[in-house]
Amino acid sequence: MHLFVYSPLSASARAYLQQQLPAEMEATFSHDLAPQDQFPAFQEADVLLGNPPPVWLAAGPSPRLRFWQIDSAGFERYRHLHLALPVANMGDFFAWPCAETMVGGLLALYRHLGELAVLQSHKKWVGGAYVRNRAGLLRGKRVVVLGAGAIALALRQQLSGFECPVQLLARTHPEAQLRSKEDLKAALPETDIVINTLPGSAEGFFSADLVQAMRPGSIYASVGRGNTTDEPALIRLLQAGYLGGAVLDVTAIEPLPTDNPLWTLPNVLLTQHTGGGQHHEDESKVDVLLRNLENLRLGQPLENLVDLSRGY
Amino acid sequence: MHLFVYSPLSASARAYLQQQLPAEMEATFSHDLAPQDQFPAFQEADVLLGNPPPVWLAAGPSPRLRFWQIDSAGFERYRHLHLALPVANMGDFFAWPCAETMVGGLLALYRHLGELAVLQSHKKWVGGAYVRNRAGLLRGKRVVVLGAGAIALALRQQLSGFECPVQLLARTHPEAQLRSKEDLKAALPETDIVINTLPGSAEGFFSADLVQAMRPGSIYASVGRGNTTDEPALIRLLQAGYLGGAVLDVTAIEPLPTDNPLWTLPNVLLTQHTGGGQHHEDESKVDVLLRNLENLRLGQPLENLVDLSRGY
Repeated sequence: MHLFVYSPLSASARAYLQQQLPAEMEATFSHDLAPQDQFPAFQEADVLLGNPPPVWLAAGPSPRLRFWQIDSAGFERYRHLHLALPVANMGDFFAWPCAETMVGGLLALYRHLGELAVLQSHKKWVGGAYVRNRAGLLRGKRVVVLGAGAIALALRQQLSGFECPVQLLARTHPEAQLRSKEDLKAALPETDIVINTLPGSAEGFFSADLVQAMRPGSIYASVGRGNTTDEPALIRLLQAGYLGGAVLDVTAIEPLPTDNPLWTLPNVLLTQHTGGGQHHEDESKVDVLLRNLENLRLGQPLENLVDLSRGY
Repeated sequence: MHLFVYSPLSASARAYLQQQLPAEMEATFSHDLAPQDQFPAFQEADVLLGNPPPVWLAAGPSPRLRFWQIDSAGFERYRHLHLALPVANMGDFFAWPCAETMVGGLLALYRHLGELAVLQSHKKWVGGAYVRNRAGLLRGKRVVVLGAGAIALALRQQLSGFECPVQLLARTHPEAQLRSKEDLKAALPETDIVINTLPGSAEGFFSADLVQAMRPGSIYASVGRGNTTDEPALIRLLQAGYLGGAVLDVTAIEPLPTDNPLWTLPNVLLTQHTGGGQHHEDESKVDVLLRNLENLRLGQPLENLVDLSRGY
């Protein structure tokens, strides 16, 4: 069986793939071949890893091709194809780290972990009493997530173990409980945490009136785009002590100017646009492929299956 | 109906209780009464909140007493009693904050949140790339928890949303997968995170040979007692870069001496014995009582029921 690897994998991920690949499979790396040999090699593939030009697939892969592992979350480029073979993408591979940074940031606020890290950097021991009667719990907090995409779903899953009721906001998504700005505004007085996962196209969505509609002491977190939050309104209500805190992976201007009050406001954690990261990213992509190869072998359902059969 | 409150509640929690108490109930606060009037008032109680001297209960509460809400997790002092009425304790009320500090600490390590908090304290912007390719994920990490008490069970629940397989270690607990030091040693090479929740009676349990049996790059976390970990061995393997990091709510000596290497080792987060804390602790105790009063009224199962009927 031939595995055709279009993904430009790191050397270590490539070695890892070679080492872990089932004995009956042989890998060909597109980037090792002369340009004119790449497409023909692609046509010999039983399994494909990566995102080749759409025309390659439109021209028709060989009938031997039995599985295609896309190495990204998005696959808009391929939506016009009509492919009757199993295709999987990376699912929430890129979303999950963002969600972990948000949940970690919320726990850091409630448990004062950022403050403790700063104290540690000064070798300053404060002991239990210093923090204990100010510390809060994530448990049972009522959460609204702006958006219902992969990050939002990962957040909901991660928060499930903390007994947090989670509502998603999205105009049309079947899993969203809140459909409109009006729904949201009505929900905010009963909400302890708002997490923004909105794309840049939702510019200005979390406007000053929504910030003001938040419950006293509640927390705002954002891993969306910086332009989707009315940041001056947020800063004003944090400065007034009306809001309980904020976890911000994004800001309207990055790098954040040194005179921005967010740098020094208490109960604000800035994660500096690090949310999406994970190391050994290429190795992790290989892992997804390997798991799906094993699923194929055992006749089990594939992970992160996407439907390209209808060419919608 | 009479509620007899033995708990020395804060003024705010007391006001909160008065305000939230069902109309048909009247509260008497033991600490308002002259000493000789306390026991007689206790004997008039339909509901009891708090932990009175065991002899009061041994002497026999009135047959009117229909529910006793203990305001602690432990109730060893009362184990010799034979009480045929419903009794509830605070369940994982004190355990849950410890578990949140541990899970938050682990996320802080993987997502570099402590490092980002320190950078923020210097107003230093580093941006995504600085952290992203070093960042890890909690997702799917294989966890062993030393202990199977309330903290261990809270940890297992909180980690469930992160798809972490969790094994508990306890000699006899029915939910423990690992029973002995030998079981543990065999599991460590396939374990990514060890979380210690052991009581002080397990002195020296996580010995040097166990630290050395941990998987390269794995993480050690402890909210147990400081004397249950071979700290010099832990420090040695952290310094050698063999272990991936540590989250320590406890250390052998507290306050931690300023020359202890744990202060400055990378990927070590010291939470300074703050794990158990939560604010409005007394209000939260009142909440547990109120929920159980409502459960009683509706004939629903009580939260955190304990069995004192057998006097074991």
